[in-house]
Amino acid sequence: MSDNLKIVALAGGVGGAKLADGLAQCLSSDQLTIIVNTGDDFNHLGLSISPDLDTVCYTLAGLANPQTGWGRKDESWRTLQEVKRLDGADWFNLGDLDLATHLVRTQRIQEGQTLSEITSDFCRRWGVDVPVYPMSDTPVRTFIHTKDGRRMPFQEYFVKEQCIPELTSIELMGIEKARAPEKALIALQQADCVIFCPSNPFVSIDPILAVPDIKHCIQNKKILAVSPLIGGKALKGPAAKMFRELGFDPNAAQVAKHYQSILSFFILDEKDKEQIPFIEGWGIICEAMNIFMPDRITRKRLARKVLSFLEKNI
Amino acid sequence: MSDNLKIVALAGGVGGAKLADGLAQCLSSDQLTIIVNTGDDFNHLGLSISPDLDTVCYTLAGLANPQTGWGRKDESWRTLQEVKRLDGADWFNLGDLDLATHLVRTQRIQEGQTLSEITSDFCRRWGVDVPVYPMSDTPVRTFIHTKDGRRMPFQEYFVKEQCIPELTSIELMGIEKARAPEKALIALQQADCVIFCPSNPFVSIDPILAVPDIKHCIQNKKILAVSPLIGGKALKGPAAKMFRELGFDPNAAQVAKHYQSILSFFILDEKDKEQIPFIEGWGIICEAMNIFMPDRITRKRLARKVLSFLEKNI
Repeated sequence: MSDNLKIVALAGGVGGAKLADGLAQCLSSDQLTIIVNTGDDFNHLGLSISPDLDTVCYTLAGLANPQTGWGRKDESWRTLQEVKRLDGADWFNLGDLDLATHLVRTQRIQEGQTLSEITSDFCRRWGVDVPVYPMSDTPVRTFIHTKDGRRMPFQEYFVKEQCIPELTSIELMGIEKARAPEKALIALQQADCVIFCPSNPFVSIDPILAVPDIKHCIQNKKILAVSPLIGGKALKGPAAKMFRELGFDPNAAQVAKHYQSILSFFILDEKDKEQIPFIEGWGIICEAMNIFMPDRITRKRLARKVLSFLEKNI
Repeated sequence: MSDNLKIVALAGGVGGAKLADGLAQCLSSDQLTIIVNTGDDFNHLGLSISPDLDTVCYTLAGLANPQTGWGRKDESWRTLQEVKRLDGADWFNLGDLDLATHLVRTQRIQEGQTLSEITSDFCRRWGVDVPVYPMSDTPVRTFIHTKDGRRMPFQEYFVKEQCIPELTSIELMGIEKARAPEKALIALQQADCVIFCPSNPFVSIDPILAVPDIKHCIQNKKILAVSPLIGGKALKGPAAKMFRELGFDPNAAQVAKHYQSILSFFILDEKDKEQIPFIEGWGIICEAMNIFMPDRITRKRLARKVLSFLEKNI
């Protein structure tokens, strides 16, 4: 039956990219569409950088660095070393191969192409046949408001200050005017299920859901989320810390609760299966699986299990 | 006496950079100031690129590629290869080390720094102690008008189309509003002599002379030019071809004639010494030297001879 399922997956960076890659290994390009957070996009050294889009595309293309999950494999850092020598901003890791993506994207944006056009062309050249779309063709910028009164652009919080400042709230500048790409909306309309990949709920999935067109489109859709937390910890990134700072226990059940009003299905790790009764008490059908994805094979295995679960329950 | 001479050298790219480097080997940083053409600056892949400034600074810093004269020694091309893979504009040679210069410059320009501030800071970090200034802190853009009716940005003519289109005229967009850096003007006011390095008269020296402040400042100055042509040929670049297309014989005397109204002294190659009588007939004191500069030692040797000539004749 998964031959017929139509899926839209929403993804942020490293964790989301892994499940997206697993799904792409199981489904045809007619069945799967991936919509990626662009709230963490930013302008740096004059370049238009889309970190989550690049992580997803590099991962799908088999070009990603398997150690870090972000950036390119076989990367070198000659330009960045020279940037440092000139006292340029070297806190964001820009490898020599990765830089080409940002240079060409920047030029094409300045020439008037949309981010979704550029992404589709890059994917074609990288051999990615699953459609990948940015959540918006107009800029959305995530700002982190901190306890010490700062309003930090997301990458400065995330990379430069390594998520150390305590957060009080998250602002999505430009979200009211954000416009999802037409083809992403069509895919959402046709989807049997929308999958929230194991990405940070606050700064990866919520921004996508806050795009007005997307918010409208997913009403009445079956939604499945895969927990980004295992045993109360995020495998990568500040999700657990953010849960605490926003006043919640960092556990899988809190993730399900965060999405409660729209969620039909929830997948958590076997380590967290004692939380299933709470989550099912909120009317969410729940299953425990091994959701750790250290390599391509485990990504595919998890994707297949998630799809089997959907076939049974949808 | 050359201990007291104050010199301002005007330079374009490779040829000009060589004599500038020779002068920098002979004179202290109090005695020499270099003003560089920025008419061939352009925006490419989102970056603010200043090819002549970089060639001069890399040359003075000992960072230039000795084979080409432009770009960096020990350069690599990983980013450009990836740009090509993404069908990005790869006709302008951007090496991995060179890219850092453009990235940091672009960010600082976007932050509001002037090109002269940025250049001074780069020079300090590269160990260049001679003051180097762009001719203007506001953009000037050279366009080449061609016989087939095109108006080509200079780098597209120069690099992308390798100077093949026949030129009819040269336009300096933004020249009326160009403002030379204050410190460059002070150096000009204090200079005993202004040296035109062996650069293309039309697209390297003329743009500098066309900056209104500079034009005003060099009136009544002693000016010495070194021919960019030897035996009727340019060692590099399209100078000889441009002379022909603009209706002149490409020879040293025509270079002197081009500058005739402002020129006191002219240095040409020994191969061209039979042209001295014509040039002296125009009231220009002229001497033949070996002006070929294949390496750092010959640059210094020529600079020393030029300075001795000035001491005798100024």
